[in-house]
Amino acid sequence: MTATLNHQWLLAAHPQGMIRPTDFVYSAEPLPVVGDGQLLIRVVYLSLDPAIRGWLYDRTSYLQPVQVGDVVRCLGGGVVEQSNHPDFKVGDEVQGLLGWQEHALSNGDTILKLPPGTLPMVTKLGLFGLVGRTAYFGLLEIGRPQAGETLLVSGAGGAVGSLVGQIGRLKGVRVVGIDGGAEKCAWLVNEGGFDAAIDYKEGDLDGQLQAASPKGVDLYFDNVGGDILDAALARMNRFGRVVACGSISRYNSTTPVPGPANYYLITERRLRFQGFVAMDFIPRDSEMVADYSQWFQEGKIIYRTEVVQGLEAAPVAINRVFEGTVNGKLLVQVSRPPGE
Amino acid sequence: MTATLNHQWLLAAHPQGMIRPTDFVYSAEPLPVVGDGQLLIRVVYLSLDPAIRGWLYDRTSYLQPVQVGDVVRCLGGGVVEQSNHPDFKVGDEVQGLLGWQEHALSNGDTILKLPPGTLPMVTKLGLFGLVGRTAYFGLLEIGRPQAGETLLVSGAGGAVGSLVGQIGRLKGVRVVGIDGGAEKCAWLVNEGGFDAAIDYKEGDLDGQLQAASPKGVDLYFDNVGGDILDAALARMNRFGRVVACGSISRYNSTTPVPGPANYYLITERRLRFQGFVAMDFIPRDSEMVADYSQWFQEGKIIYRTEVVQGLEAAPVAINRVFEGTVNGKLLVQVSRPPGE
Repeated sequence: MTATLNHQWLLAAHPQGMIRPTDFVYSAEPLPVVGDGQLLIRVVYLSLDPAIRGWLYDRTSYLQPVQVGDVVRCLGGGVVEQSNHPDFKVGDEVQGLLGWQEHALSNGDTILKLPPGTLPMVTKLGLFGLVGRTAYFGLLEIGRPQAGETLLVSGAGGAVGSLVGQIGRLKGVRVVGIDGGAEKCAWLVNEGGFDAAIDYKEGDLDGQLQAASPKGVDLYFDNVGGDILDAALARMNRFGRVVACGSISRYNSTTPVPGPANYYLITERRLRFQGFVAMDFIPRDSEMVADYSQWFQEGKIIYRTEVVQGLEAAPVAINRVFEGTVNGKLLVQVSRPPGE
Repeated sequence: MTATLNHQWLLAAHPQGMIRPTDFVYSAEPLPVVGDGQLLIRVVYLSLDPAIRGWLYDRTSYLQPVQVGDVVRCLGGGVVEQSNHPDFKVGDEVQGLLGWQEHALSNGDTILKLPPGTLPMVTKLGLFGLVGRTAYFGLLEIGRPQAGETLLVSGAGGAVGSLVGQIGRLKGVRVVGIDGGAEKCAWLVNEGGFDAAIDYKEGDLDGQLQAASPKGVDLYFDNVGGDILDAALARMNRFGRVVACGSISRYNSTTPVPGPANYYLITERRLRFQGFVAMDFIPRDSEMVADYSQWFQEGKIIYRTEVVQGLEAAPVAINRVFEGTVNGKLLVQVSRPPGE
């Protein structure tokens, strides 16, 4: 059966606050014709990332905003179905900015081939894609952990956070995770190899943090911003580093969110608070692929995913990323993965 | 005439908000006896720095707080009057934590010799002391300016800020200064060699900043925090650096001061926001002394001072540091400088 239509979610309005299904319109166009230098990708998985929320604001950040009428921007993985592009052939597994649609026409610009190998596509997309790249380069290049230090990770039960903690352990640091809920925290310690977990829903964040980091915090990998960032700053040791990965606590806010009141500690404790965007490190993906492949095959890294079925589900599922109810990486499966 | 009494300002109460003269008590003790391994320094100048305000809070920062009954901690310069210490001899010019008093008894621990040479002591104390060290290592080691970049400096008319801007010019960057008042801003451009000056009292900070930095800001040397920090963050180029030197806007606050709301730009613009404490660089003072000596003798660096007469004046004069009415470095002269 060959598809003749390409279903898509188009942006209907820039969301205010939390994303609502009515911010999008479900549409169908004829399957596009593949021109010279182009390729057509059958979308298999779409990755629901917090970053999507930022792209939907009507302001330029590190990428142009998605405009009303555009296909919703989204990273994903797929299989090349037709190709008039010299670098891609039919059957290649690829990742890139595919968008909320069944088929993506591309000139190859934002498309990377997934490394060959026997890992399931969903695992490759994680470890060798945005999530894996964010954790790997954010921790190792921006954070620069030293054996014996204490690493604190927020959003620790999430896809990026759980990888950061596991890589930290492999580098010989004490790893403390923060997330919400007893089940998530139990997973961090029992399965994820974290040395300690803090459930922020239990309250007394400062007290829990003090108990979990008796020697203070040398490196804080910040996925959330807000109050947790302030608590972490207060616990930082001299010459500590804060990796500014994201501020999920403010992504959906419609009013100005205060900055971290404890930022003044950056001076007296000689802290380095540094941001990064994972895609800057794409030229160095091969380092990451080599390390993750080895760690995964040796059973040293667990990568959890939760897969929602069907493109139709995307506009509702995306909000789960902000509700803290996902165990690992959330994806939408749009079509059958290769090998299944 | 030999002194027999040592007058001192002791802390009477940890200040709330702005420093008041009643936070101190003027006292006299007999001139101390110099024991083995000790030296007695006649205090010549006391340097009134914003950092003093931080030391007077009843909480530990990078130094223990000054306690009620202690001599007020203060950097200064003086002449060795008696010595039972092998490293110091009578007549040596020294700098260090001398305190608000006429004579300082020391075991030599926080005392550094001023380099010999013909510069007036007041200039040596600035360029070769805390002010010079803060500007030199903060800009060059933390900020790492590259020729052709744009450097923004707040508190630009102050002792540290004016040096930062002048060093920046020597390193080939475009230098924009922010300070309050037309006279200060005129000095920056006409005498200090700044490429542009922004008078924040004129309003429209964002518009003035945009006009003064047509290519954006690559490096922001932050002496003030607050609204100016937020405006600077909004104007930063990708991979920019913020040198977190101080947050004078919050030193005297009795209520929590909001953090910079634009801190989230640290992530998407890949900024590095880094703090430092100048005294960490004392082991490298010789690099700074060599450069400043050369620049000063070649007329490439102007160092402005304003000297208030008499130890009695210290508790009132210190607040001028926070009022923005000082042109350059504010010092109290306690006794006659060598060579005058």
